[in-house]
Amino acid sequence: MGNHKLKKIGVLTSGGDSPGMNAAIRAVVRTALYHGVEVIGIREGYDGLVQAKFTAMGARSVSNIIDLGGTILKSARSDAFRTEEGRQKAYENCKNHGIDGLVVIGGDGTFTGAQIFSEEHGIKVIGVPGTIDNDIFGTDSTIGFDTALNTAMDAIDKIRDTATSHNRIFFIEVMGRDAGFIALHSGIATGAVDILIPEQKDSFEEFYKTLEESHKRGKVSNIVIVAEGEQLATTYELADKTKEKFPNADIRVSVLGHIQRGGRPSCADRVLASRLGYGAVIGLMKGLTNVMAGLRSNQLVYTPIEDAIKKHNEINKELLTVGEVLAL
Amino acid sequence: MGNHKLKKIGVLTSGGDSPGMNAAIRAVVRTALYHGVEVIGIREGYDGLVQAKFTAMGARSVSNIIDLGGTILKSARSDAFRTEEGRQKAYENCKNHGIDGLVVIGGDGTFTGAQIFSEEHGIKVIGVPGTIDNDIFGTDSTIGFDTALNTAMDAIDKIRDTATSHNRIFFIEVMGRDAGFIALHSGIATGAVDILIPEQKDSFEEFYKTLEESHKRGKVSNIVIVAEGEQLATTYELADKTKEKFPNADIRVSVLGHIQRGGRPSCADRVLASRLGYGAVIGLMKGLTNVMAGLRSNQLVYTPIEDAIKKHNEINKELLTVGEVLAL
Amino acid sequence: MGNHKLKKIGVLTSGGDSPGMNAAIRAVVRTALYHGVEVIGIREGYDGLVQAKFTAMGARSVSNIIDLGGTILKSARSDAFRTEEGRQKAYENCKNHGIDGLVVIGGDGTFTGAQIFSEEHGIKVIGVPGTIDNDIFGTDSTIGFDTALNTAMDAIDKIRDTATSHNRIFFIEVMGRDAGFIALHSGIATGAVDILIPEQKDSFEEFYKTLEESHKRGKVSNIVIVAEGEQLATTYELADKTKEKFPNADIRVSVLGHIQRGGRPSCADRVLASRLGYGAVIGLMKGLTNVMAGLRSNQLVYTPIEDAIKKHNEINKELLTVGEVLAL
Amino acid sequence: MGNHKLKKIGVLTSGGDSPGMNAAIRAVVRTALYHGVEVIGIREGYDGLVQAKFTAMGARSVSNIIDLGGTILKSARSDAFRTEEGRQKAYENCKNHGIDGLVVIGGDGTFTGAQIFSEEHGIKVIGVPGTIDNDIFGTDSTIGFDTALNTAMDAIDKIRDTATSHNRIFFIEVMGRDAGFIALHSGIATGAVDILIPEQKDSFEEFYKTLEESHKRGKVSNIVIVAEGEQLATTYELADKTKEKFPNADIRVSVLGHIQRGGRPSCADRVLASRLGYGAVIGLMKGLTNVMAGLRSNQLVYTPIEDAIKKHNEINKELLTVGEVLAL
Repeated sequence: MGNHKLKKIGVLTSGGDSPGMNAAIRAVVRTALYHGVEVIGIREGYDGLVQAKFTAMGARSVSNIIDLGGTILKSARSDAFRTEEGRQKAYENCKNHGIDGLVVIGGDGTFTGAQIFSEEHGIKVIGVPGTIDNDIFGTDSTIGFDTALNTAMDAIDKIRDTATSHNRIFFIEVMGRDAGFIALHSGIATGAVDILIPEQKDSFEEFYKTLEESHKRGKVSNIVIVAEGEQLATTYELADKTKEKFPNADIRVSVLGHIQRGGRPSCADRVLASRLGYGAVIGLMKGLTNVMAGLRSNQLVYTPIEDAIKKHNEINKELLTVGEVLAL
Repeated sequence: MGNHKLKKIGVLTSGGDSPGMNAAIRAVVRTALYHGVEVIGIREGYDGLVQAKFTAMGARSVSNIIDLGGTILKSARSDAFRTEEGRQKAYENCKNHGIDGLVVIGGDGTFTGAQIFSEEHGIKVIGVPGTIDNDIFGTDSTIGFDTALNTAMDAIDKIRDTATSHNRIFFIEVMGRDAGFIALHSGIATGAVDILIPEQKDSFEEFYKTLEESHKRGKVSNIVIVAEGEQLATTYELADKTKEKFPNADIRVSVLGHIQRGGRPSCADRVLASRLGYGAVIGLMKGLTNVMAGLRSNQLVYTPIEDAIKKHNEINKELLTVGEVLAL
Repeated sequence: MGNHKLKKIGVLTSGGDSPGMNAAIRAVVRTALYHGVEVIGIREGYDGLVQAKFTAMGARSVSNIIDLGGTILKSARSDAFRTEEGRQKAYENCKNHGIDGLVVIGGDGTFTGAQIFSEEHGIKVIGVPGTIDNDIFGTDSTIGFDTALNTAMDAIDKIRDTATSHNRIFFIEVMGRDAGFIALHSGIATGAVDILIPEQKDSFEEFYKTLEESHKRGKVSNIVIVAEGEQLATTYELADKTKEKFPNADIRVSVLGHIQRGGRPSCADRVLASRLGYGAVIGLMKGLTNVMAGLRSNQLVYTPIEDAIKKHNEINKELLTVGEVLAL
Repeated sequence: MGNHKLKKIGVLTSGGDSPGMNAAIRAVVRTALYHGVEVIGIREGYDGLVQAKFTAMGARSVSNIIDLGGTILKSARSDAFRTEEGRQKAYENCKNHGIDGLVVIGGDGTFTGAQIFSEEHGIKVIGVPGTIDNDIFGTDSTIGFDTALNTAMDAIDKIRDTATSHNRIFFIEVMGRDAGFIALHSGIATGAVDILIPEQKDSFEEFYKTLEESHKRGKVSNIVIVAEGEQLATTYELADKTKEKFPNADIRVSVLGHIQRGGRPSCADRVLASRLGYGAVIGLMKGLTNVMAGLRSNQLVYTPIEDAIKKHNEINKELLTVGEVLAL
């Protein structure tokens, strides 16, 4: 693993926080130091790059963070970085501080910024997929997805206690503006009677039929999982229309909201974050740039960052079938 | 403990479910059987009393339920029980099945029903306080309150990860239409900058001042806990007005909702439910009626059910001070 | 999906229980019923097969079990099934009850029994890998592994609080008699200074050196994860020898034990169990036999049961490196 | 609340760590600062007092610690403080740094040290009960007890999954060398068939009879909770003798161990710690010394530290009865 050139790298987190980002930061810092590469922590995402919110990071600076949700480097929107001047300033900061490469942890917005910056100024950049939505191409799972699934599932399990106790229908909205991964997995894990996601065309007729059949089969309470980005209707509209259709049904809505972003990362997310943070630094040392470190079939792989942004993980069709069959 | 007369009792849960109700049912069933008293499980609250949804319960019928949220006997609204005819029918069902006494597990609505029924028909009734809201007089804690606190706290801890990562102000609404207990305890436990509850008169000036002082002291993120029943404004209004007042602040709202009702009961709730379920049966055996079993200063006590309904647990003033001082 | 022949299948769990077995049972039952195939639940593993402990299972018989640890069908050792007579009796029971195919959920002992039985009597058998140890070839993950990882991690996180507070070295033994998967993953997830597993040759010299270097780098507390099957020494011996070597060190041992087998299954395990239970029935319907349903690279695959038993999942070498590098 | 004299206080944690100690430290720091009193954090307990391991603490130095297990001030044994010379040095350190009063958080060993120190040198001292064992007189609950109960209960719930799945008897040892509080509460909360604690005289005959009756009543699996300090026999001896008595029983042992000390504090423990840390500072400001701040019947009370050490909380007899009756 020849590392003739890399001397100092920067690491930042950007976009919405996700559980495991801290484990990824720790992995980046320690892998770099292990190989004799210095590390600068950049606070508050690209805004910190523009404003040089830089801190040198030692091995002990990332002690006891592997189990923390959120990101110790913080995240922020940066209007400045969207301008050429802002990125110029960011580049100068990198040059002045001797930063040879960047590891950016975040979602597709984060990667887009990285790509533009890298193309404009030639800084080496490697992305690490940190988002609960699992909507990044090039990795079987994004950092935070598994934790978000468990958080959503735990919440739905709790609501199911009430649904069962009162013979109710609960419409539960989970995160996922563009992708139904959280809805699909958490819905299967909680025995949802139906799972409504943007990737699939739904209709009220079909949905009503599902509820009617469930009723006929003797189900006295039902959980319906709705992804934020569901196209048919908003969760509240769905509930209202269902009430019109079945006036005797006792119907409630719960929007899980921000609890899905935070919390102590699961074991799978900590291991994934550790591997990808490690892989990102190894990649930079090998001279890679404009790629994202991912895990496919349990192997570390690098995907062009452009593909990571533009292509999409597809919903597993079989999972949709499994969800439908097991709702029997 | 002379039990010359009691031969058969009924047990039901009514009103909103709360974690620990199953532990209470188990305690009622086993304590009765231990003392040679038969037990009828009445399904779906007072509706089941009117419609004779009765099941004989043995010791094994309550195995492996102590750790389950919700209520295996289910709960339901009963319009019929609100009528004299309905209660007459309920009484006849009791007589026909030889039910000498009733244990009703629920909140003040449940107790009001019990009191009327008992006065009209002379059936012996003992209440067990099962509600997450802790708004029942005659017990230091209601069954489900401790679990709801931990659930709310866990959720707020998760949201705090995001608040801290993005330097945000989060308005988090917790349950409590008439009482601020959940808000106060969960707010202190999560280091909330302010806690808005119906028991206390709040003003926007004071609230803005609290935020400004927090900002001056260097707090970069803030959690504001709002009880459902807060009088100043709804949670969304609070957030909107705060945004008007501090346009640069990054403000979000999260309504925790139904997750607070369900879930595996905490140890404290299981022990409390076990003691009160036990105490209710012992009370019936002693000939008590129209009382509620509660725990005060770690002692089993019986309070007239009328007091349990009409009087109110008061918010501990010192706790309000503690919350304010520690938000420093 | 032609299903001309299959009319009735049996399902059993055998060997040590693992979280997610109930989700797998549910998936088997509902997938079969969905396709018009009847299902017999066989209680207490192969013993129930020999003694015809059979129950017909409907769709509602597996309601509300997806979130439960353990197995509702129970598990047991069966000496009788190890004899030819016992298996003959088991076969007759199958024949008498019209059982055309069997789904057996468990580990390699379970699969060995299935293979012999199938070869002797021609009953179609499909295995579903349910074990926390992840030591089954033919699937990226076994049912229960992910939950066990989170359980072990949560326990280690708790112990780390004490280790950090007292500047201690903790030796923590996790399950895994033949395989170090739990140790490796939970060790990486908790920032262990060293991870001792049977798949890797360890020496005291190396181990002492690791501790010394950790000390030099300023680490004041250390977690050492030891797999049950570690070859160098038992966990207690390791602790004793380390104490001899470093008399000033404050050293403790914790054996996590049986908590690792139980508990509510994680989302990943529930989804995995649902897919594999589904896949097992689909496989039987397709006429497959003597195979195990597994998930590789997120695809349902069938592996000859002989391979599942004899071949082994190998420890990912990169993970070992990641663990070492990140312990910096 | 006249505070004419108090200018600077020290705070330390000593003895075994318990969840909520950090919440107590935070409360001490912020309450003091709120009232214009400076705070010195003393690291590693009395050892830090002797060696002047002092750090000035601001309001932000205790941000984001309310949810952490362990103690950020650390704890350690101190042989030096057991000598007159050591305590003399400790006193001089206090004098040199202007420390007027001390808040010591810990158990009875901690309080004994405080009492001697205070008597010898006239330093004002207030104790805060931080221990999972709940064996301190003068408070209904010690800081950490509630969390330890939930941790033990969660672990036992997990083991019960396996016990139920295999029809086993599990002997589970929980912490409590001198006191059976953890055993009694966690045992009731998990439906243990028997709970063996040092406060109660047990015999093998009685115990065997309990198991036999459980068997007769149709219980197929049993959990026996044993407090560390049980007098009849060690947990392993109990299991061995039971196996001799009932050779067909499938018997296992699990020692929960150190997981009971750590972990995120429960809501009850965070609120309790906040109130007691607050109360300790208020007490010092009022001129109190040699007392412990506790909570009795939900009121802040101060108990002479000598009583806290010498008197004992007694096991609630009714709870023992409840445990026995509900094991039906």
